[in-house]
Amino acid sequence: MNYNDDKINMTHGAGGEVMQDMISNVILSNITKTSVNGGIGLEQLDDSATIPLYDDHVVVTTIDSHTVQPLFFPGGDIGRISAAGTLNDISVMGVKPLSLNNAMVISEGFNKADFEKIIKSMDETCQEVGAAIITGDTKVIDKDKLDGMIITTAGIGIGKKENIVSDAGLNEGDKIILTGSIGDHGMAIMSQREGFGYETDLLSDVAPVWSMVEAAQSKGKITAMKDPTRGGIANALNEMSDKSGFGLYLDEDKIPIKPAVHAVSEMLGIDPYEVANEGKIVMGVEPDNAEAMLEAIKNTKYGANAQIIGEVTKDKYVLMETSFGGERIIEPPIADPVPRVC
Amino acid sequence: MNYNDDKINMTHGAGGEVMQDMISNVILSNITKTSVNGGIGLEQLDDSATIPLYDDHVVVTTIDSHTVQPLFFPGGDIGRISAAGTLNDISVMGVKPLSLNNAMVISEGFNKADFEKIIKSMDETCQEVGAAIITGDTKVIDKDKLDGMIITTAGIGIGKKENIVSDAGLNEGDKIILTGSIGDHGMAIMSQREGFGYETDLLSDVAPVWSMVEAAQSKGKITAMKDPTRGGIANALNEMSDKSGFGLYLDEDKIPIKPAVHAVSEMLGIDPYEVANEGKIVMGVEPDNAEAMLEAIKNTKYGANAQIIGEVTKDKYVLMETSFGGERIIEPPIADPVPRVC
Repeated sequence: MNYNDDKINMTHGAGGEVMQDMISNVILSNITKTSVNGGIGLEQLDDSATIPLYDDHVVVTTIDSHTVQPLFFPGGDIGRISAAGTLNDISVMGVKPLSLNNAMVISEGFNKADFEKIIKSMDETCQEVGAAIITGDTKVIDKDKLDGMIITTAGIGIGKKENIVSDAGLNEGDKIILTGSIGDHGMAIMSQREGFGYETDLLSDVAPVWSMVEAAQSKGKITAMKDPTRGGIANALNEMSDKSGFGLYLDEDKIPIKPAVHAVSEMLGIDPYEVANEGKIVMGVEPDNAEAMLEAIKNTKYGANAQIIGEVTKDKYVLMETSFGGERIIEPPIADPVPRVC
Repeated sequence: MNYNDDKINMTHGAGGEVMQDMISNVILSNITKTSVNGGIGLEQLDDSATIPLYDDHVVVTTIDSHTVQPLFFPGGDIGRISAAGTLNDISVMGVKPLSLNNAMVISEGFNKADFEKIIKSMDETCQEVGAAIITGDTKVIDKDKLDGMIITTAGIGIGKKENIVSDAGLNEGDKIILTGSIGDHGMAIMSQREGFGYETDLLSDVAPVWSMVEAAQSKGKITAMKDPTRGGIANALNEMSDKSGFGLYLDEDKIPIKPAVHAVSEMLGIDPYEVANEGKIVMGVEPDNAEAMLEAIKNTKYGANAQIIGEVTKDKYVLMETSFGGERIIEPPIADPVPRVC
């Protein structure tokens, strides 16, 4: 694959280093104004942007197009992922999601019953956090010009400035919490595509993460946070390390991986660290409250398997002590190994 | 065409009555929470939604997917329309657009130079109103699964509650201002597709409308407002009439149509009243200030050909006095006659 020719290729949208390159060189370099009122803007490449208001409040907003294939997969569908994906990008800024904007581009001939299922699934997901769907747009295009459907959701949350958590705020000594098992979503998609989807007990983890953020915040300070979607925890942890200037030291034994995910990842030769999750968070927390925050997360619907997986170091690397007692550098992936994962 | 079978067809996304039906029966009926804090929400089907804040301010937000074909057309490109379309939906709520979220789904193999042109065009359009592009998302999908690119933009404006203008507020006696000639965008797209695009002087009108809203508001009160995109002024005027419960009486001689638009519409048998505009506004204004507001609009970059085209009546119809002295009812279109117009 040639990453530098004059055409866009799959890696340009795969959430890894090639995509970051394109964003910097083609997108950021051509946009004049990238933030409002000194808020977090496009250049920070955080999960959401912020618009500070005239007092101590702030509007948090984000957008994501969802192109997941297949549209229905074990554990979820494009409706659930379109809602959860955007609600989660707001949530990991530390603020409760209030509302979604929903834009759908549908292929002519799309089955109406499936369409209705997708809308219902989107609504159910919003209900889990009490978010409203307040505005939308519907376009239909010729069936030979689009496969299935694309759902783009934007979201808004409004909160206090003091609660905003960027992905750049790690400090030396912070503990790293991972809220559950890794690779479930990407591997569920892959195994479905490979034709053994419903023969395993592999389910996508797609879910709204807000309750876990709220629980953690009730017990202490989150210093940095991301939801590890495209590029998996390998990408999220490296981004948090890069942006803070600190390193991470992780304990492989603490990182939960389900046996079915492990089996499928071995079979397909895909690293579960580099695969998308859709209902997990990696967060840095102040060490003194780490245990209390972990317990609070464990008591939420989606947080039962949360773990403290490591801590922030002076180094520049994301380093992991392996189960066999060795050490391994977790590199940022070039791209997500699973195309159209979200 | 059967509008009621079990598959989605082109009319379901064409901005007319069939689309309104689907929105009511499949989308609205399945969504539990459609507004926040008593603001304008999904059910109002207005150009944007509003989130009232804790004091006298309000957040205005909207979303639109842009699937225009061809991507480059006389007078604009998908970048300009993606920015203007969303900035305009905020503007016609009476509030200055602050920021855009930009989500792009790109077909593998897309030309990078074209991609960069599109980003630049988007940025230039934002600069006309001082809006920032604060967050984004990029996805790439296989070239046989998507034709070209889809750009979805969401936008935010923040203003005072007292300045919000819905599309439902017409009162009997209000004057109707149209800010310029109709059909330019839809006809430019059609004539380009039919192969005589660059032989006519037909240019899309795609442009940000904010300066016209600001000018009008400086001289009086706007009672209702829409930008007549899909379905043209026929759709916009009928929606404003329906929602207010009042009728309209229009003067055909006052509605500006460029000779090239007239010629192409005759040739293709397409009614310019039903065709998308991308840089125009129809607004209801208090009669006492109508002339002053018109003059203010005429002094802006895109408002030189603005006209008072009629007034609000007790009737329930959108009625027009024709150039020949007869009367014609302007019906709401079933669908926009130009597919993939925006």
